[in-house]
Amino acid sequence: MAGSTFGTRFTITTWGESHGEAMGVVIDGCPAGLSLQPDDIQAFLDRRKPGQSKFSTARQESDRAEILSGIFEGRTTGAPISIIVKNKNQLAKDYDKIKDCYRPGHADYTYDRKYGFRDYRGGGRSSGRETIGRVAAGAVASKILAELGIKIITYTRSIGSIIVPVSDYHYEQINENIFYMPNNRYAKKASDYLEDSIKRNDSAGGTIECIVTGMPSGIGEPVFHKLDAALSSAIMSIGAVKGVEIGDGFDASFTSGSKNNDTFCIENEQIIKNTNHSGGILGGISDGSPLILRAAIKPTPSIPQAQKTVTIDGNETTITISGRHDPVIVPRAVVVAESMTAVTILDMLMQNMSARLDDLKDFYH
Amino acid sequence: MAGSTFGTRFTITTWGESHGEAMGVVIDGCPAGLSLQPDDIQAFLDRRKPGQSKFSTARQESDRAEILSGIFEGRTTGAPISIIVKNKNQLAKDYDKIKDCYRPGHADYTYDRKYGFRDYRGGGRSSGRETIGRVAAGAVASKILAELGIKIITYTRSIGSIIVPVSDYHYEQINENIFYMPNNRYAKKASDYLEDSIKRNDSAGGTIECIVTGMPSGIGEPVFHKLDAALSSAIMSIGAVKGVEIGDGFDASFTSGSKNNDTFCIENEQIIKNTNHSGGILGGISDGSPLILRAAIKPTPSIPQAQKTVTIDGNETTITISGRHDPVIVPRAVVVAESMTAVTILDMLMQNMSARLDDLKDFYH
Amino acid sequence: MAGSTFGTRFTITTWGESHGEAMGVVIDGCPAGLSLQPDDIQAFLDRRKPGQSKFSTARQESDRAEILSGIFEGRTTGAPISIIVKNKNQLAKDYDKIKDCYRPGHADYTYDRKYGFRDYRGGGRSSGRETIGRVAAGAVASKILAELGIKIITYTRSIGSIIVPVSDYHYEQINENIFYMPNNRYAKKASDYLEDSIKRNDSAGGTIECIVTGMPSGIGEPVFHKLDAALSSAIMSIGAVKGVEIGDGFDASFTSGSKNNDTFCIENEQIIKNTNHSGGILGGISDGSPLILRAAIKPTPSIPQAQKTVTIDGNETTITISGRHDPVIVPRAVVVAESMTAVTILDMLMQNMSARLDDLKDFYH
Amino acid sequence: MAGSTFGTRFTITTWGESHGEAMGVVIDGCPAGLSLQPDDIQAFLDRRKPGQSKFSTARQESDRAEILSGIFEGRTTGAPISIIVKNKNQLAKDYDKIKDCYRPGHADYTYDRKYGFRDYRGGGRSSGRETIGRVAAGAVASKILAELGIKIITYTRSIGSIIVPVSDYHYEQINENIFYMPNNRYAKKASDYLEDSIKRNDSAGGTIECIVTGMPSGIGEPVFHKLDAALSSAIMSIGAVKGVEIGDGFDASFTSGSKNNDTFCIENEQIIKNTNHSGGILGGISDGSPLILRAAIKPTPSIPQAQKTVTIDGNETTITISGRHDPVIVPRAVVVAESMTAVTILDMLMQNMSARLDDLKDFYH
Repeated sequence: MAGSTFGTRFTITTWGESHGEAMGVVIDGCPAGLSLQPDDIQAFLDRRKPGQSKFSTARQESDRAEILSGIFEGRTTGAPISIIVKNKNQLAKDYDKIKDCYRPGHADYTYDRKYGFRDYRGGGRSSGRETIGRVAAGAVASKILAELGIKIITYTRSIGSIIVPVSDYHYEQINENIFYMPNNRYAKKASDYLEDSIKRNDSAGGTIECIVTGMPSGIGEPVFHKLDAALSSAIMSIGAVKGVEIGDGFDASFTSGSKNNDTFCIENEQIIKNTNHSGGILGGISDGSPLILRAAIKPTPSIPQAQKTVTIDGNETTITISGRHDPVIVPRAVVVAESMTAVTILDMLMQNMSARLDDLKDFYH
Repeated sequence: MAGSTFGTRFTITTWGESHGEAMGVVIDGCPAGLSLQPDDIQAFLDRRKPGQSKFSTARQESDRAEILSGIFEGRTTGAPISIIVKNKNQLAKDYDKIKDCYRPGHADYTYDRKYGFRDYRGGGRSSGRETIGRVAAGAVASKILAELGIKIITYTRSIGSIIVPVSDYHYEQINENIFYMPNNRYAKKASDYLEDSIKRNDSAGGTIECIVTGMPSGIGEPVFHKLDAALSSAIMSIGAVKGVEIGDGFDASFTSGSKNNDTFCIENEQIIKNTNHSGGILGGISDGSPLILRAAIKPTPSIPQAQKTVTIDGNETTITISGRHDPVIVPRAVVVAESMTAVTILDMLMQNMSARLDDLKDFYH
Repeated sequence: MAGSTFGTRFTITTWGESHGEAMGVVIDGCPAGLSLQPDDIQAFLDRRKPGQSKFSTARQESDRAEILSGIFEGRTTGAPISIIVKNKNQLAKDYDKIKDCYRPGHADYTYDRKYGFRDYRGGGRSSGRETIGRVAAGAVASKILAELGIKIITYTRSIGSIIVPVSDYHYEQINENIFYMPNNRYAKKASDYLEDSIKRNDSAGGTIECIVTGMPSGIGEPVFHKLDAALSSAIMSIGAVKGVEIGDGFDASFTSGSKNNDTFCIENEQIIKNTNHSGGILGGISDGSPLILRAAIKPTPSIPQAQKTVTIDGNETTITISGRHDPVIVPRAVVVAESMTAVTILDMLMQNMSARLDDLKDFYH
Repeated sequence: MAGSTFGTRFTITTWGESHGEAMGVVIDGCPAGLSLQPDDIQAFLDRRKPGQSKFSTARQESDRAEILSGIFEGRTTGAPISIIVKNKNQLAKDYDKIKDCYRPGHADYTYDRKYGFRDYRGGGRSSGRETIGRVAAGAVASKILAELGIKIITYTRSIGSIIVPVSDYHYEQINENIFYMPNNRYAKKASDYLEDSIKRNDSAGGTIECIVTGMPSGIGEPVFHKLDAALSSAIMSIGAVKGVEIGDGFDASFTSGSKNNDTFCIENEQIIKNTNHSGGILGGISDGSPLILRAAIKPTPSIPQAQKTVTIDGNETTITISGRHDPVIVPRAVVVAESMTAVTILDMLMQNMSARLDDLKDFYH
């Protein structure tokens, strides 16, 4: 498959460039019978909306989701769901600066190398707007997961050097600050950090954390389609992500087996783990504990200061990127990470249904 | 696809359990005309061989690769290459201890939850021996990459708290110590660290780093099959891996855009980057700089001390795992990470060949 | 993958119901650099347009193709191409008749059985309008094939009992009659046949034939993705197709080896076959002769006479389908068969590019 | 995916050449808990065994199936099942005749064109022995289908001009004659036909029919992965197949809608069809009636008479193929067609399990 389709049973195919006519996604394999309205999708899209504070681009993107197929009398029919969001701001702009040279940290150079030329309007297909289709699909997947008792909480764990310690997590505060941080006090610190960053004409990165509760055990396909392998691919495919961890992640590599192993015990006649260093996955299969994953987001590459670069003709030059750009994209990427997680988990849940002969026999009694 | 197949054009399908009759891999889509002998594969398999020091299991695994198909007169024919390695040590052992309870940190519990029961002999499909098929395929992929001028160097970056600083890398020392570390002095420190770990009946983890040179630019498929997304999935699918980074990885999330952006310049009439924080990938597509990726490996879960756990009947108990087990698996995983990287890159190179209409026209003039 | 995506390198994902807001297709993996305008697609869509004669439905479908992504400055960029056609005629109609019972020969019953309910407006996803996406994609694939010197000719070979004998083929007449038959005289006979059919409130089927010239040899992937296997799947996936043949097809089963074998000879220093019973495919791989394939189309199931059926509640009843329906859909399916053939061949051509190591070496010298 | 893997949830990957060391298949995604012994597979392999009469090659192929993985204590574990059959007769033969020229009707020429050279020993990968892997996998799939109440009957419908009329079918006679014909009297006629064919140093083709009973309704994925599309691909991928029909197939194209439509009625409180022209599939989804499919097999291309051909150097020559070859391969292909049908249906049954939200909710209550 070419690169714009993800998933095996619940598959999503996204399309669209930042300055083209529209962005969209086709969801195929969505189970029939789900109640679905445009508002379900809009709620997710609004979470990635810019212009909500001085720390995100002022460009007004009032992205409205339209559902063009796959719904009948308010329910999904099993047919592909086509969702479209029209681009509003594709004004003729002066792209001369970025047209003829390569912005550092962007995909300008690599797209040229791959395809021979590129759509230079605002990043084209490599723009952050590409995630609209992911988020629309994530809204649908999340709604199904909710029906199965599975809930995903995603938040900004750090911005630059400002890291919320686990001991200070207050999930109820996530939606109380513009950074989606689980602690308003740290959000204030992040705000100060970014003010300073802006003053220096610079930008910041950060990390996102995602917790999935209500996850059944037994989900994931050994050997290559392990749950953690699928999640890594899903998360790393988001632009600007440079690292992915499950559970204790890199910290696990520095500790010892006796500390890292999660022992089992019985609670309420259920087998559970006493700890969750594994992040809810053992041998690539969910173990019933909450899934925990983390993504590292690099600093916004568009910065309002002069940077050395080269022209497409191979001459050295200097570029200063104008226009407003998010000094940090982490808060807007929170819902994207959540969406990719939702899509991946749902797909794996669907794949798992034929793991046992007894289940096939029950199904086709 | 079920979980034991990886890749789209160069696909590998592995099979076998640690204590079954044999392990193997079927490679499909291998280009025709490659000179290939069993020794090419044996060289890779020998790198994952245990029993080479007191830090790896004493079990003598003299794994011999046999090629059963796909080769004619010493060259690949384009037909699937079936490689098999017979298991030598599948003696009837006393599995009673692990048969009826779940080893902490292992996949015993999750396999039971997924399939209703499990092959409890030595981990079955979730055993480290499963990687034999990956490594055999990696040998083939690496040989093709070498013909294209692409070279992969993989090594142990850290064991427990012993981390080789980048400034002290000496690639020529990688094969001079039993840990495949790029510095013999740090390998000595790691040895001391492990001695201590063994004394405490404990185990250690570590990190692996992989550098790919000679990589053409333009490789990787946006949006979901980005080169870094594919590599993440490949690496995270290796048992015991809990984190993956590309380039500066998590460090990038703490720095600023001006420091993280790699500026472009001209050298010998070629466009290159002045730095390589990106790890050779921009927008999911290779940028011509060396690829850099890192994997976090958790400590060996089998430790020779009593651990709390539960029986499959749901009673709490204590287990002490006997037998020799590697106190650290990182050195043996080095060639596995290299193999998965090789397979992934080759697959992406093959996918990329139809990116431009002009290339199709040249091909089918 | 769920069912609405086809292809591996050149992939198409279609969406839309006959009476929803729009129909569409997303083409992913289209090589960059192809000159493409909406007119290229419109020309193909117009070939499946109804209302061109008394033998096709009077419903005015002025289907206009819009390209929403993947094109920049008139050329494909390598990004997904999203094509949309708005539905004009989705008026509130009286569906009560078909809402509560199952039309014989239609997919009403099977969709209900699969999904639990169905979008009963005009067939929903199982409508013939679903082919709009296929045809739009076929237009793109055909344009690329033309650049590679590959040409597809498709025509109606028979309608009901009226069969054009091979000896009477006049390809230049295909576009001179409303049935796309390669002989105007037989088209007249078909017209009479249909007049009679209409008088009896009945419908007719027919066969379509497709010839591909300029086809390179060596295309097709043994064992399961043989060129003929891929084409069969592509053609059989078109609604109403009940049979597929390659070359002499079923006739080959009745003859002898000495008559069916195509012997080789040399012509203009090229190896060619003296005959083409194989239809251009040997062992699943193209042999350089023209591809020949044939599809059997069943008679239109919607007929204006009373038919026995059952209600969704399980009671026997009688249904008479009102409204104008094509008494034969074969002529409109000609471009659909051509489109699926084009998409399949292009995909196989792209897959084939990595068959030889020498070609990889040339590509990545 | 490269061409030697088939299926999406129940996937099979075959490997091996006719004169290599062994043939085999890896089955991935087999549900856990199926009782499986080598004898289950052997029973299927024996049905394709040659040397059972003067009409099949005298080469003694005592193909013995070994299961190398995926079974524990007599049951499938969910892990890949590797099945291997060693080649016994790969003696050094004189291949000079076929080494340097192209046999008419064989894949010699096309493999050379695709890969640059070929394994000329006995057809290599394009040999009929390639089907061993398919049949071994078919045995497993069939056993699962049997547990679900689904049964497949496959037989030779015609050899050359000898066609068993539907009215003369006696299924109980299928295993009473060497041709697997459902009528011993017609089998005698076929025997005479072949005697005559052999006398003329010629060969024959034929048709195979396959009936699937106990098939649940609702199976098949619109639009491109329709049940009939998947079956067509599966059947057409068998070497020597040149045509595929579902239900009335090509005959449907010659009749009228009123005759071809299957009307619905109620029987024993169940909805059934009064007839089964559709062959059990409507809109690509099973309708609860028996599936009916038919395959056309071309005459054996290896015939013991002089045929014109060309050398690989491009010179015209004459070839006479020596050695015993089946004058008809149809009877041996019966179990191959049955196997591919079984694998396809099982895969579609597994895919279908996530079609409805309610089913996911039941599964993950």
